[in-house]
Amino acid sequence: MNEQQLINTRRDFHKYPESAWTEFRTSSLIAERLESLGYRVKAGLDVIDINSVMGRPSEEIINANIARALSQGANKSWLDKLKRYTGVLAELDTGKPGHVVALRFDIDCVEVDEDSSTSHRPFNENFASVNSGCSHSCGHDSHMTIGLGAAEELISMRNNLNGKIKLIFQPGEEGCRGAYAMTQAGIVDDVDYFLAFHIGMGLNSGIFACDSKGYLATTKFDALLTGKPAHAAASPDKGKNALLAACQAALGLHSIAPHSEGNMRINVGTLNAGTGRNVIASSALMKIETRGETQAIADYVYSRSLEILNGAAMMYGAELNIIKAGESPEMKTSPELAKIVKEVVKGLNIFDDVQDLIHVGGSEDAAWFMNRVISHGGQAVYMGLGSNIKAPHHNGKFDIDEGAIINGVKALVSIVKTLAD
Amino acid sequence: MNEQQLINTRRDFHKYPESAWTEFRTSSLIAERLESLGYRVKAGLDVIDINSVMGRPSEEIINANIARALSQGANKSWLDKLKRYTGVLAELDTGKPGHVVALRFDIDCVEVDEDSSTSHRPFNENFASVNSGCSHSCGHDSHMTIGLGAAEELISMRNNLNGKIKLIFQPGEEGCRGAYAMTQAGIVDDVDYFLAFHIGMGLNSGIFACDSKGYLATTKFDALLTGKPAHAAASPDKGKNALLAACQAALGLHSIAPHSEGNMRINVGTLNAGTGRNVIASSALMKIETRGETQAIADYVYSRSLEILNGAAMMYGAELNIIKAGESPEMKTSPELAKIVKEVVKGLNIFDDVQDLIHVGGSEDAAWFMNRVISHGGQAVYMGLGSNIKAPHHNGKFDIDEGAIINGVKALVSIVKTLAD
Amino acid sequence: MNEQQLINTRRDFHKYPESAWTEFRTSSLIAERLESLGYRVKAGLDVIDINSVMGRPSEEIINANIARALSQGANKSWLDKLKRYTGVLAELDTGKPGHVVALRFDIDCVEVDEDSSTSHRPFNENFASVNSGCSHSCGHDSHMTIGLGAAEELISMRNNLNGKIKLIFQPGEEGCRGAYAMTQAGIVDDVDYFLAFHIGMGLNSGIFACDSKGYLATTKFDALLTGKPAHAAASPDKGKNALLAACQAALGLHSIAPHSEGNMRINVGTLNAGTGRNVIASSALMKIETRGETQAIADYVYSRSLEILNGAAMMYGAELNIIKAGESPEMKTSPELAKIVKEVVKGLNIFDDVQDLIHVGGSEDAAWFMNRVISHGGQAVYMGLGSNIKAPHHNGKFDIDEGAIINGVKALVSIVKTLAD
Amino acid sequence: MNEQQLINTRRDFHKYPESAWTEFRTSSLIAERLESLGYRVKAGLDVIDINSVMGRPSEEIINANIARALSQGANKSWLDKLKRYTGVLAELDTGKPGHVVALRFDIDCVEVDEDSSTSHRPFNENFASVNSGCSHSCGHDSHMTIGLGAAEELISMRNNLNGKIKLIFQPGEEGCRGAYAMTQAGIVDDVDYFLAFHIGMGLNSGIFACDSKGYLATTKFDALLTGKPAHAAASPDKGKNALLAACQAALGLHSIAPHSEGNMRINVGTLNAGTGRNVIASSALMKIETRGETQAIADYVYSRSLEILNGAAMMYGAELNIIKAGESPEMKTSPELAKIVKEVVKGLNIFDDVQDLIHVGGSEDAAWFMNRVISHGGQAVYMGLGSNIKAPHHNGKFDIDEGAIINGVKALVSIVKTLAD
Repeated sequence: MNEQQLINTRRDFHKYPESAWTEFRTSSLIAERLESLGYRVKAGLDVIDINSVMGRPSEEIINANIARALSQGANKSWLDKLKRYTGVLAELDTGKPGHVVALRFDIDCVEVDEDSSTSHRPFNENFASVNSGCSHSCGHDSHMTIGLGAAEELISMRNNLNGKIKLIFQPGEEGCRGAYAMTQAGIVDDVDYFLAFHIGMGLNSGIFACDSKGYLATTKFDALLTGKPAHAAASPDKGKNALLAACQAALGLHSIAPHSEGNMRINVGTLNAGTGRNVIASSALMKIETRGETQAIADYVYSRSLEILNGAAMMYGAELNIIKAGESPEMKTSPELAKIVKEVVKGLNIFDDVQDLIHVGGSEDAAWFMNRVISHGGQAVYMGLGSNIKAPHHNGKFDIDEGAIINGVKALVSIVKTLAD
Repeated sequence: MNEQQLINTRRDFHKYPESAWTEFRTSSLIAERLESLGYRVKAGLDVIDINSVMGRPSEEIINANIARALSQGANKSWLDKLKRYTGVLAELDTGKPGHVVALRFDIDCVEVDEDSSTSHRPFNENFASVNSGCSHSCGHDSHMTIGLGAAEELISMRNNLNGKIKLIFQPGEEGCRGAYAMTQAGIVDDVDYFLAFHIGMGLNSGIFACDSKGYLATTKFDALLTGKPAHAAASPDKGKNALLAACQAALGLHSIAPHSEGNMRINVGTLNAGTGRNVIASSALMKIETRGETQAIADYVYSRSLEILNGAAMMYGAELNIIKAGESPEMKTSPELAKIVKEVVKGLNIFDDVQDLIHVGGSEDAAWFMNRVISHGGQAVYMGLGSNIKAPHHNGKFDIDEGAIINGVKALVSIVKTLAD
Repeated sequence: MNEQQLINTRRDFHKYPESAWTEFRTSSLIAERLESLGYRVKAGLDVIDINSVMGRPSEEIINANIARALSQGANKSWLDKLKRYTGVLAELDTGKPGHVVALRFDIDCVEVDEDSSTSHRPFNENFASVNSGCSHSCGHDSHMTIGLGAAEELISMRNNLNGKIKLIFQPGEEGCRGAYAMTQAGIVDDVDYFLAFHIGMGLNSGIFACDSKGYLATTKFDALLTGKPAHAAASPDKGKNALLAACQAALGLHSIAPHSEGNMRINVGTLNAGTGRNVIASSALMKIETRGETQAIADYVYSRSLEILNGAAMMYGAELNIIKAGESPEMKTSPELAKIVKEVVKGLNIFDDVQDLIHVGGSEDAAWFMNRVISHGGQAVYMGLGSNIKAPHHNGKFDIDEGAIINGVKALVSIVKTLAD
Repeated sequence: MNEQQLINTRRDFHKYPESAWTEFRTSSLIAERLESLGYRVKAGLDVIDINSVMGRPSEEIINANIARALSQGANKSWLDKLKRYTGVLAELDTGKPGHVVALRFDIDCVEVDEDSSTSHRPFNENFASVNSGCSHSCGHDSHMTIGLGAAEELISMRNNLNGKIKLIFQPGEEGCRGAYAMTQAGIVDDVDYFLAFHIGMGLNSGIFACDSKGYLATTKFDALLTGKPAHAAASPDKGKNALLAACQAALGLHSIAPHSEGNMRINVGTLNAGTGRNVIASSALMKIETRGETQAIADYVYSRSLEILNGAAMMYGAELNIIKAGESPEMKTSPELAKIVKEVVKGLNIFDDVQDLIHVGGSEDAAWFMNRVISHGGQAVYMGLGSNIKAPHHNGKFDIDEGAIINGVKALVSIVKTLAD
């Protein structure tokens, strides 16, 4: 694909954003394209460990989104093969000795309405999201475009390549929902070099960073407290008040002591309890996330959270159910691999500046893949691709400098070629 | 109307229940009927003080319910005259000296799904609610039927009547929402004798109670806390956490000290806060009710509630808005009038037992009318009409013994005739 | 004793008040007196079940109070026989057939400083408390005086008496601490008629009430939460915060839902937590009481309290210890016995008014004796002896009308004589 | 003083430790000694701004400690001159042009019992604290010893010195109580170079650090909530529950959101509320501290604390009083001065290692002096003097390597000589 084709591909993805575990149009079109290029492609349930899925929406929502995907041009044949799950894995085995190199691209959108003012280019040029409540305001549209661009280049030079290449298109990065299920499906168990990256992240156009530091280990979970209803005036003593249990829990969760060894975060983001003004509330649902600068800190805050929730439930005789909705461990990276990447990317002479490291915040579930690869002796990095952005990530006015896309393709192709040898 | 006609009328109301402030079909048909009988009829905005309305749904819901009413046989002409408000007042002025006697009938349903098992007569005989989430599970369908029955009888005997008769069909008794706005419109300012009643209430068929005791003064209100959103990991200090403010408030509200002089109740029935797992919650809405055995106790618990809510808002820098959704004062009654009622009803010889008093719980906003009438020198009682019921009030299996209806008509007609003299 | 002697006795007790489980001077002098009158006397550890003692002070305090008792004229020989416990039982067995009649007198003071203004008669006439922090501001000084007066009368007429008489001088009524241990020692297991009474209680001089109604079942207990200290700035995550656990518990305890069947109360009266400003608090102690109008309600609020305390402890990884400090069950009484009492007391013609019942509040651990007697087929009442008082019970300005004492003696003597037959 | 004399001096201070604002023996002996050396000495109220004193004990405690000081060998004449306040300032004006150089030594002990096992050298060699609850377990005894040692050296070389030397012996460093009042008295307003230091702090014997980084800005304060008592069973509604207000506040304080720009801490170290089990608690006292990595963070957490306390007080109708007990701002230091110090100290060749910086935690109120000096154009550093310690600071087993003392004297003398020029 030339630059214009890459931009067109990105804009098509941008117009039809799909959120975590509903990337049906996206997955089917990626699979179709990669298969047509000559890759061996598996998708949906074939690349997902169903028991490791976190934060999947209800089956009603899945149904509605499959229907929407069809109406928005999904590939029917691949849609069926997905078997109600999303994500794609494409493999190219050169048949020659060499290393196994994996690239990871995340494909989901964020649940934010896209801006519809004329100053917003996607709106102005008619490729803004048509899916209400959804937008590619984090830049994953460009990630998969780069993935498809690199896929085409790499297969075109297969005779000059060694080893094996794996292209991973991961669903549900937002909320740290998808990587674990792919990792548990074993798809990186044979990987020697693993590379993931993000566009933007505070890096201006023309800058490339060879690794990242600062992602927080995190757990996202829902806590459901179930008590017993009772008429609030006639028989309040007959109830078990799940609303008050949740209030005690929320205060307790936010009072978890800070950790002496580094940053941590906890948030009860939503609390919904009760059915009527004159009824003792019989249920309460909280959406919670915990984060820690290290795995030990993350484990501390999560295990303290469970103590607090269990205690608060006991206070009011309520039952507690914890449902994990997402998770990512502390990310390990390989400085030696970052050095190789730096050498290769500098050698391309297409970036103004090639940095060692980008300091980030937030969380990123590519860590599951990376830690797995490193644990069996492989190497992994998380790179940064500079691109001037119009608004912060996850903001409805977010837009990228599309010039970064073709440079991203070139960088990945060179890195893979070098590593696969 | 003969007994069968009364029963048919009740079953028609039963099939098309409408909840507080949406009684459009109900009001239009009552107004049409009373006008056709010869009463001077006013309805909707003409009998409501718009500034005293509490707990009215959103205009979207009003629109939807007006449309539904039309589709379910509302009288179009009266529907227009309602001007988006509900309730009916019918007057008969005999032109002869005498007293002004008012009867009050409540017309709204409760927001409970009606049972749909074959053991439930309304379902079996095809007059169960067709409006999802709504049912006449408190018996107000029989109240208005009795009202229409008495209306027909009374006007037929107008030549033998003295004074003036006012028939009040009140919207929004559930949640104590409607009586205040009617009282403030001045419709009982000239009343000498005021009578309200309820069917069931623990009285078996064949029993009549001449007055009630035990209704709790109550305030229903929503508390909206508005804070400020912020990313929970990146800038938690920039937020103002309305969820935590609400949790502190809920615990504080439930810890209000009991009152030494009698029963009180408080309940935070629902709490809904926050928008996303990783965002500091910027708003929280609680539905609250307070009750007291006396006005002083009710005032105590309500004013303590406001202190607590204001303090909790201040703790987190949140803004507090209180929206009253319903209210009823401590009910005053007139023992002298109860004595007259007893004599008249006993004289009918249609009840097995005529009791002085029924002890009740809960709340009833007829108290607004009654206290107003008594405050200007009139008298008022709240009577009980026995009827075996199949399940407790507000339960989806609730059904009455329809035999009580005609006896109710007879009792009211006799009482009015006596008092109007 | 003539009236002046009775008054002198009361004033002596008044001057040397002793609080629960430290009534060493009091017990020794009562025992000495009763023995000298000819009763068979047991005291201290001989009338107490040591495993059923609640709310006993530390051994250091016991030591100090024994020393004080000696210095204030205790009987040394009886002090030794007490074996560090208090309370006295005197028996008179007439040897003739008849009933076993027991009278109970409580002997402890309250922990309130006595008023020292010249308008306060005890101060003015030099019989105010000399024991700081202690005063007979509830009237138990008069109870035991009446007991000694009746003892003298009854033994003087032993030839005209039948059955057996038991005079119980109970320690630790305040805080409901002493009756249980005496009941468990079995001292009322053979009793047919049991009588207790209180002076004052809102009854004016000249009034006598034959029974009481309204005492609340209660449990007094301490909750000790033990966490783990840590430096609050350097290693807050290493602590287990008992202070926050206590705060959650206190809010939870005060939010226990009211009971539909009657009054209940709960109070966290004191909370003391932590050792230093910059240390995570490792312990917290709360003094708590629960009360209920019926045993079922009292059980409900106490068991809910334990749930809440256990849950709050779990929230912060703290250990919970519950120490009972006092308890009294719902009091049962015998209306038939009250009738007999009424007849006897009316017959004396010394009271202006003899009432059936006095309605009281608060709690009274005579209930332990009464329920035990009734459970094995006996009868019991709790009477009221009118006496104009100068200030409410437990107030430092409390003083009685001493004229009530001799009437109390006369009433008890007559009642016992009648019942013992 | 030779090394043995220095050690004897340190051990004398060690044996008679005095906590913040009670350093009467200590101050009087320091003043006596410095005066005898030839310094111009001011002490107590003459070097303290009385309106800026924080965390001073009650006058009863002051009285008791003055008496103890006298009994332990205080200088009576200086004790009088202190006028019930502590701290000493000694000045040496060489009369020659040069700079004003100030050294600061803190003189208070910590409120910790000293270990009394034979393995603890001070106990074994008979110089352990004789003042119960007090010990020099932070090393301030060595600080003042070094100060007196340097004083003697410096005045002995006065003919070779220029400028002016100020030796500041500050009371109440623990709890950040004393420096502010001395700063407000103006005693460093003319200072060009200011130097403070601490022994130990994780530096081994033989190491010297020229500056420090990491002290947290802090505020220590007491929050007193005053409600209204009431009988918990008879009239709970009449009370204003300060205990519950404190519980809400404590949970709120510990739930203050972490700051995105750096570390912060908050601790409610103690909470004491209520008077009796059956009384609504009418008062509650909390000892609180807030800390922040920067002044902005410290201001954030302190101002949020006040919001929370005010809100919690309002919730229960309680009155709030805040009493500041200590405070220290973010510490500014002068890297240029640190460079000079490094050069001088290295030149002495008595330390194994001279480091640029020591990273610390905790808080240190020398910051008041340093920021004042820097604000008028001077320079300031906070140095570290290595010394192997036996247990952490503030632990009863704390003891220093006394070999560090003479090296401390030498370093200070050289630095002052250089800077004063």
